[in-house]
Amino acid sequence: MTLIADLRAAVGDDQVLNEGDLSAWELDWRRRYRGRALAVVRPADTAQVAAVVRACVQHGTSLVPQGGNTSLVGGSVPDDSGTQVLLSLSRLANIRAIDTDNLTITVDAGCVLQQVQQVAASHDLLYPLSLAAEGSASIGGTLATNAGGTQVLRYGTARELCLGLEVVTASGEIWNGLSGLRKDNTGYDLRDLFIGSEGTLGVITGATLKLYPQPAAIGTAMAAVPTLEAAVQLLTLARTRLSAGLTGFEVMNGQALGLVRTHFPQWPQPLPPSPWTVLLEQSDTESAAHAQGVFESMLEAALHDGCISDAVVAASLEQTAAMWRLREGIPLAQAEEGLNIKHDIALPVSRIAAFVQENDAALSAAWPGIRIVDFGHLGDGNLHYNVQAPVGVLAADFLADHEAAVNERVYEAVRAHGGSISAEHGIGALKRDMLARTQSPVAMQLMRAIKAALDPRGTMNPGRVL
Amino acid sequence: MTLIADLRAAVGDDQVLNEGDLSAWELDWRRRYRGRALAVVRPADTAQVAAVVRACVQHGTSLVPQGGNTSLVGGSVPDDSGTQVLLSLSRLANIRAIDTDNLTITVDAGCVLQQVQQVAASHDLLYPLSLAAEGSASIGGTLATNAGGTQVLRYGTARELCLGLEVVTASGEIWNGLSGLRKDNTGYDLRDLFIGSEGTLGVITGATLKLYPQPAAIGTAMAAVPTLEAAVQLLTLARTRLSAGLTGFEVMNGQALGLVRTHFPQWPQPLPPSPWTVLLEQSDTESAAHAQGVFESMLEAALHDGCISDAVVAASLEQTAAMWRLREGIPLAQAEEGLNIKHDIALPVSRIAAFVQENDAALSAAWPGIRIVDFGHLGDGNLHYNVQAPVGVLAADFLADHEAAVNERVYEAVRAHGGSISAEHGIGALKRDMLARTQSPVAMQLMRAIKAALDPRGTMNPGRVL
Repeated sequence: MTLIADLRAAVGDDQVLNEGDLSAWELDWRRRYRGRALAVVRPADTAQVAAVVRACVQHGTSLVPQGGNTSLVGGSVPDDSGTQVLLSLSRLANIRAIDTDNLTITVDAGCVLQQVQQVAASHDLLYPLSLAAEGSASIGGTLATNAGGTQVLRYGTARELCLGLEVVTASGEIWNGLSGLRKDNTGYDLRDLFIGSEGTLGVITGATLKLYPQPAAIGTAMAAVPTLEAAVQLLTLARTRLSAGLTGFEVMNGQALGLVRTHFPQWPQPLPPSPWTVLLEQSDTESAAHAQGVFESMLEAALHDGCISDAVVAASLEQTAAMWRLREGIPLAQAEEGLNIKHDIALPVSRIAAFVQENDAALSAAWPGIRIVDFGHLGDGNLHYNVQAPVGVLAADFLADHEAAVNERVYEAVRAHGGSISAEHGIGALKRDMLARTQSPVAMQLMRAIKAALDPRGTMNPGRVL
Repeated sequence: MTLIADLRAAVGDDQVLNEGDLSAWELDWRRRYRGRALAVVRPADTAQVAAVVRACVQHGTSLVPQGGNTSLVGGSVPDDSGTQVLLSLSRLANIRAIDTDNLTITVDAGCVLQQVQQVAASHDLLYPLSLAAEGSASIGGTLATNAGGTQVLRYGTARELCLGLEVVTASGEIWNGLSGLRKDNTGYDLRDLFIGSEGTLGVITGATLKLYPQPAAIGTAMAAVPTLEAAVQLLTLARTRLSAGLTGFEVMNGQALGLVRTHFPQWPQPLPPSPWTVLLEQSDTESAAHAQGVFESMLEAALHDGCISDAVVAASLEQTAAMWRLREGIPLAQAEEGLNIKHDIALPVSRIAAFVQENDAALSAAWPGIRIVDFGHLGDGNLHYNVQAPVGVLAADFLADHEAAVNERVYEAVRAHGGSISAEHGIGALKRDMLARTQSPVAMQLMRAIKAALDPRGTMNPGRVL
């Protein structure tokens, strides 16, 4: 039998697409990667996924798993050879079980993140992973890339929110590692090996996730800070005062909020322009009034210490939403302003201020007039350190001429400060060449040994990560 | 050169012991395992550890890493062949760095847990891992076995408290994965693969650990509950009311506190005997008075709901210490009462009550008169489900005749309820045979492939885990 015939036998004729316009699967979210698939295959359940993998193994064909296709690093679209099978997980979209006493939910990998958030909320519980693409990103994708988002400070990344996995291995067997256990020390940590492996070791088909009680109230505030050092000082104060109640600590530079002001003048900004602005969020177990009181007393102390120059506490849900809209508007405003060079980096919190100061100066000296748009999850040491072309320069030309050199310089500085070149989006195809240059030879050797051991034929998502 | 000569060249003559009484290294904490080492080698730093591993590889000798030797499952003593090198990490005991803005500490693997707690406290910070053996257990050992303890509910296990590792691989190379990053998605998760691998994939020589601000106050309370279902109901209430403020939720059955009453009558018990008693602990960011108020209002609600029958809130540090002494006295009282059969199991919180009810009945029917001593970390689903011989029966005889059958029955029930046979102590030598019977063939195959890939010569701690 041909591969196509075997795939049809595995999932049904209708679910193997190899003609017509397949761009819905072949093009990535940023429209930066366009591949060509041998076929798009849409299995309905885990057993069908396993049958698809076995068919590919038998025919010596490689496959690319795809969830919501929102990783932004080209990890989930086929290459342009036309020889890879695109395995879409979108039909695996069942909520399998919710256990309210154990605070867990077990779901198919193709469930959309927002769907899981909503099911949890309907039981008065919280699945705290939250990110811009949550209306499209799949649970399997968030785990394959160990996604982050805005509540990592309190609840951790996708990895830390996952208790168990179901995976189809590279040989097409099903590993049922679904578990609702908080503690389990029986053998090697297979779960965390598959999490973050971006589909190169196996296909995640299901997961058991942690849930939390919904907080009684959410408090939100914005504070103007003179420097990034002052923002770090405010972070230390907030952590001490609020402990795990501090769920968000986002920083934005003046350039970032300036672009929002330019492109979205209809959105009021509650504070005057400042070198840096912090958005703080807390979850309170008592009441909205209690949350507000805690914020007010903390911000008074911060004013007194001189680490903030001004602040405002949201007094209503509308004000909270307006504050978050400013933060979430930054990438939109950047897109309005034109193409830009994005870096999703992490640094020790204690090194961020020095990194930004040194690197801003170095980049501005090398490329006069460039605009550095800095924002991100300061509480996690995760910055979106983006570079916009100088005013009046055509962005596409600037990127064509300088993107590689800008990346080189930024990543070199990240390495020098003990940072990471991919904080929350993964390696994919985009940063594959960078990986070997930032990881040590020993680390690369260990990773290659693991890949060879678990996927000896190179079936799973070749050309990604390693 | 002989192996001994190579080892001497690596670490110095004085640090290779192969004569005289080596029982300090050859005998495990429970005195259940006694091995015989070819030599005890005590390197001073990571480079010397790497040299020792290379010497063993070259001579085809296997080695057993040892930290504080407190795992209780025979994972860190040599076998009785007299052919294994015992690698003691005790001289790697430096605190390498503390970064208060980044809330991290980087330490040698041989540092004792209590030492790290104390250094953190001297900076007004908290390293929250806390367990009975903390005065002896090494950081490397807590990571190699992914140790748990009493604060997992809030802060997670040793795995979740670790940001980066330094490891000597099975070929004697040094992987520097020390990192103070909260987010880093660059390649496979090597860190979590070495954590919990019990020295079978490499030797952990250093770690970067998460620190937390010290809470403003600790609150402690005890509550009498009629059933284990009621304890789970109280847990749900406490989680909702306190969120991450709830740092401990320990359960003890009547038998457990009864043994404490018998053997330590000088320790006052603040509540009358009850089928089950819960010890609750919270960390408060405001004040001791606030913590007490939160507990009082929650316990009033619980009394009203009928899920508790009585409760007392500690009003002083002395009362807090007295409550914890009762909980920590259980294993001591068990030892006074005589040998017993220990099970360190985990279950979904929602299944614990059913498990205990069914299994208590089944065991009591099979072995009339046995006493089941149940206590543990209910918040993590982790029970120490121990079996004491019937009154009047010689414990050693009972264990010799029935231990295997009791284990068989308990572990079978654990499997049936989706639980784990090793929640926080690991597999070691003790549970190695059980592992293959509780993990699926696919999981075992994945683990064996990883072992073969990372330690192809079988140098590292053979006969443990796999």
